[in-house]
Amino acid sequence: MSFADRVQNPALRTKIMSADEAAALIPAGANVGMSGFTGAGYPKAVPQALARRIESLHAAGEEFRIGLWTGASTAPELDGALAKVHGIEMRLPYQSDPTCRRQINAGEMQYTDMHLSNVAQFVWFGFLGKLSVAVVEVAGILPDGRLIPSSSVGNNKTWLDQADQIILEVNTLQNPGLEGMHDIYYGTRLPPHRQPIPLTGPGDRIGEPYLTCDLDKVIAVVPTSQPDRNSAFAAPDENSQRIASHIIEFLQQEVKLGRLPAELLPLQSGVGNIANAVLAGLNDGPFKDLTAYTEVLQDGMLDMLRSGTLAMASATALSFSPVALADFNENIDFYRERIVLRPQEISNHPEVVRRLGVIAMNAMIEADLYGNVNSTHIMGSSIMNGIGGSGDFARNAYLSFFMTPSVAKDGAISCIVPMASHVDHTEHDVEIIVTEQGLADLRGLSPTQRARLIIEKCAHPDFRPALLDYFERSLKTAAGKHTPHLLDEALSWHSRYLKTGDMRPVAAVQEALHLV
Amino acid sequence: MSFADRVQNPALRTKIMSADEAAALIPAGANVGMSGFTGAGYPKAVPQALARRIESLHAAGEEFRIGLWTGASTAPELDGALAKVHGIEMRLPYQSDPTCRRQINAGEMQYTDMHLSNVAQFVWFGFLGKLSVAVVEVAGILPDGRLIPSSSVGNNKTWLDQADQIILEVNTLQNPGLEGMHDIYYGTRLPPHRQPIPLTGPGDRIGEPYLTCDLDKVIAVVPTSQPDRNSAFAAPDENSQRIASHIIEFLQQEVKLGRLPAELLPLQSGVGNIANAVLAGLNDGPFKDLTAYTEVLQDGMLDMLRSGTLAMASATALSFSPVALADFNENIDFYRERIVLRPQEISNHPEVVRRLGVIAMNAMIEADLYGNVNSTHIMGSSIMNGIGGSGDFARNAYLSFFMTPSVAKDGAISCIVPMASHVDHTEHDVEIIVTEQGLADLRGLSPTQRARLIIEKCAHPDFRPALLDYFERSLKTAAGKHTPHLLDEALSWHSRYLKTGDMRPVAAVQEALHLV
Repeated sequence: MSFADRVQNPALRTKIMSADEAAALIPAGANVGMSGFTGAGYPKAVPQALARRIESLHAAGEEFRIGLWTGASTAPELDGALAKVHGIEMRLPYQSDPTCRRQINAGEMQYTDMHLSNVAQFVWFGFLGKLSVAVVEVAGILPDGRLIPSSSVGNNKTWLDQADQIILEVNTLQNPGLEGMHDIYYGTRLPPHRQPIPLTGPGDRIGEPYLTCDLDKVIAVVPTSQPDRNSAFAAPDENSQRIASHIIEFLQQEVKLGRLPAELLPLQSGVGNIANAVLAGLNDGPFKDLTAYTEVLQDGMLDMLRSGTLAMASATALSFSPVALADFNENIDFYRERIVLRPQEISNHPEVVRRLGVIAMNAMIEADLYGNVNSTHIMGSSIMNGIGGSGDFARNAYLSFFMTPSVAKDGAISCIVPMASHVDHTEHDVEIIVTEQGLADLRGLSPTQRARLIIEKCAHPDFRPALLDYFERSLKTAAGKHTPHLLDEALSWHSRYLKTGDMRPVAAVQEALHLV
Repeated sequence: MSFADRVQNPALRTKIMSADEAAALIPAGANVGMSGFTGAGYPKAVPQALARRIESLHAAGEEFRIGLWTGASTAPELDGALAKVHGIEMRLPYQSDPTCRRQINAGEMQYTDMHLSNVAQFVWFGFLGKLSVAVVEVAGILPDGRLIPSSSVGNNKTWLDQADQIILEVNTLQNPGLEGMHDIYYGTRLPPHRQPIPLTGPGDRIGEPYLTCDLDKVIAVVPTSQPDRNSAFAAPDENSQRIASHIIEFLQQEVKLGRLPAELLPLQSGVGNIANAVLAGLNDGPFKDLTAYTEVLQDGMLDMLRSGTLAMASATALSFSPVALADFNENIDFYRERIVLRPQEISNHPEVVRRLGVIAMNAMIEADLYGNVNSTHIMGSSIMNGIGGSGDFARNAYLSFFMTPSVAKDGAISCIVPMASHVDHTEHDVEIIVTEQGLADLRGLSPTQRARLIIEKCAHPDFRPALLDYFERSLKTAAGKHTPHLLDEALSWHSRYLKTGDMRPVAAVQEALHLV
């Protein structure tokens, strides 16, 4: 379908211009709300044009930076391009871009790492300042001006509602068959006028298939024809497969004990290779007629939909490898019956997540002995990506899993540590920890009971003795024995890693390398 | 009203017995769900009788301990009595008793510190094991066996539904005028059968004024006539008044900026002297027609109801000083029109808290530079009380305040620290920090922006230079500058306190005491 066929509204046809012309309309210092969630549905042309403009302005000695708000992560053409020219003053609510990350950790870019369900309402509340411009990718524009959303919804409804001015990117590479897959809920209100979100099943449609906006606010319509990020996933490795099998075994046990129905409860799965491997395991597993109420649909869930293991899936974004995308495009009529794409305030809504009883499965960086989880920081200070939706789901889930291989960096880092160097999910929110070593079911346990179980089930054998030693000495000498810690040592593993590149004491490393 | 008048059901009259007889029916090792929330509505006779029984069994060399589940904190006659005889194996979901605390911190009692909104559903899910016996205080029993709830609701609905056997304590000291004040919602279901909680205003009544239970499960009806804990509050001190005035000024500003309606949004206020002082400040302040959607009604809210500043209040428990209680009892018809008491799964329900847009105000132990809050632990290892409902409210609130004086122990402890020694509320959940020094509005700020503001606005002048020094050195030398920390020093203030009784270096203390 041609660009002309995609822009059917006469008024908006008059606003068609190049990306460079559109980018020239964005003022310095503006907060700009861009579409994009997990490398899907982000604008591709305007951000790059804006980056070029910023680069030449900076070369001319002129200041130009923006506040960049999105749904979640985007891609090199957006985060990468704008970061490279030092065009981002404040980034929120999530990023996973290498250039952004480097600048944030160098103190050159401010970053506010937020629960993804909170972003839209905080903008409505006026807590994040004024949103000046929205730059939103769409798949098409109907004659009456309604917008066919793209491969992600994210915060687009809020950006279009709240921004003073709107730039639309119409991407002719997005499948026109996306039309009808979305469900944009327009029933949100500000307190005290809020009503229940009327969603009681993952497949419920409670809104409209189209985004709408005040057409008078549209200042530019820009043609693009570039693909989404479409990163390939790594093939599930042995550790991921073991993690998957521990989770599947546990879920089977819960069904047997009558604590889960045979078709389980709606699945939420974080983004990344481990999550994808768990989904592959579920697809090969004993379960049928599953559902998903999640943030992002990756390859794993598409496989499950195709095989029939998954009856339907709700999400806010599609994040496929090139191979999965080809399948999706070829069979879009099949998938449209089984996928609902929603705004992220609904896909991640605490009210809905709790009501549905979601089974949440999220990756983490490290957990400590007492079940506190770090999802965001390397060695306490450096941001990796962000909390994303993991808190929205984990806090409100029926069952919440946090997953990681037990070690990282070829064994130099233990992902089970005495004390987490940063806490994103507290002991009150972490139910089940899984590594390739095993699964620790922490429900109803005290901190010291948790510690013994986590060491036994989840820690890598190379670190188990040292963890047990820390725990036993803490139990003997800590000021309190509820969550016994030796404060002079609690972060020493991280500190040692920063100094030596290894959490293990030098002697232990030498022994491991057969140097002594 | 006499005990006989309070037990109007003929079948239950046949189960009347003494507390000692009833306590004899509780089996060793049982999980026992007792009523009680913030020292209100807890059983008074049976726990003490059970403690006597346990003491004599222990003296005879017999093992006897129970799992003790409640709504929240109770009183010396319950937690204290059972802890003194070492009768509690596992305590959940909250305690604030000195004997329990001592045993937990000595490693002699297990304690699972939970979000209060989660307790009922986790029992329904089967996550905490089998509940054998419910021991529930009521104000009376109707002819058809329905129960008039007492001065708290807590988890009583769930205990009565889920326990195999039920012991009722009928307390003739509870005001019969409580009848009609409660709203027990019987619409909760297990996923996937859950429906929206149909509550859209703090005063809505969505259930029944009575608790019901299977009368065949009732094994004992025990008369009591003992008052609730009824602790007096300290008169608001200067620090609390300053905290209150910072909050009130901030709320006025938010109204002026159009971010809050003139009558604000429903207030939630934690338990304790600071919270009570803030309420006193609000009562003297400029606001009218306020509402409350909170956990516990303390003296402060009763004053506000009486003065008309507060139009209505929803809670799960009444926790009054003797003076306030006398007023409450005298004017119970007035208060019954303005107070709704609900199960804690509804008073603290994330869905409802978010929908109503609650303004949450909770005390804390310490916050760190980056806005992570510790609500539960002293120096990382020793439990104080527990997280209670602070997470239910803070995470889902419209605005969330965390409050503390800037120093404790006569200045030896800074309540603003480089790194929190335990995290209950993460950087993603903490919007506003208030001390007597000032208020830091952290909305939308990056970690380093937060740090500068917290040091400037909230830290005590005695600690401000050291905090700034830590922050500036971290910014220079930390591996990452997103949340810069010096891991070898991050917990050194706590460590120093444990060694010397003072967070300040010896030299600084000597100087403060004019010893040098």
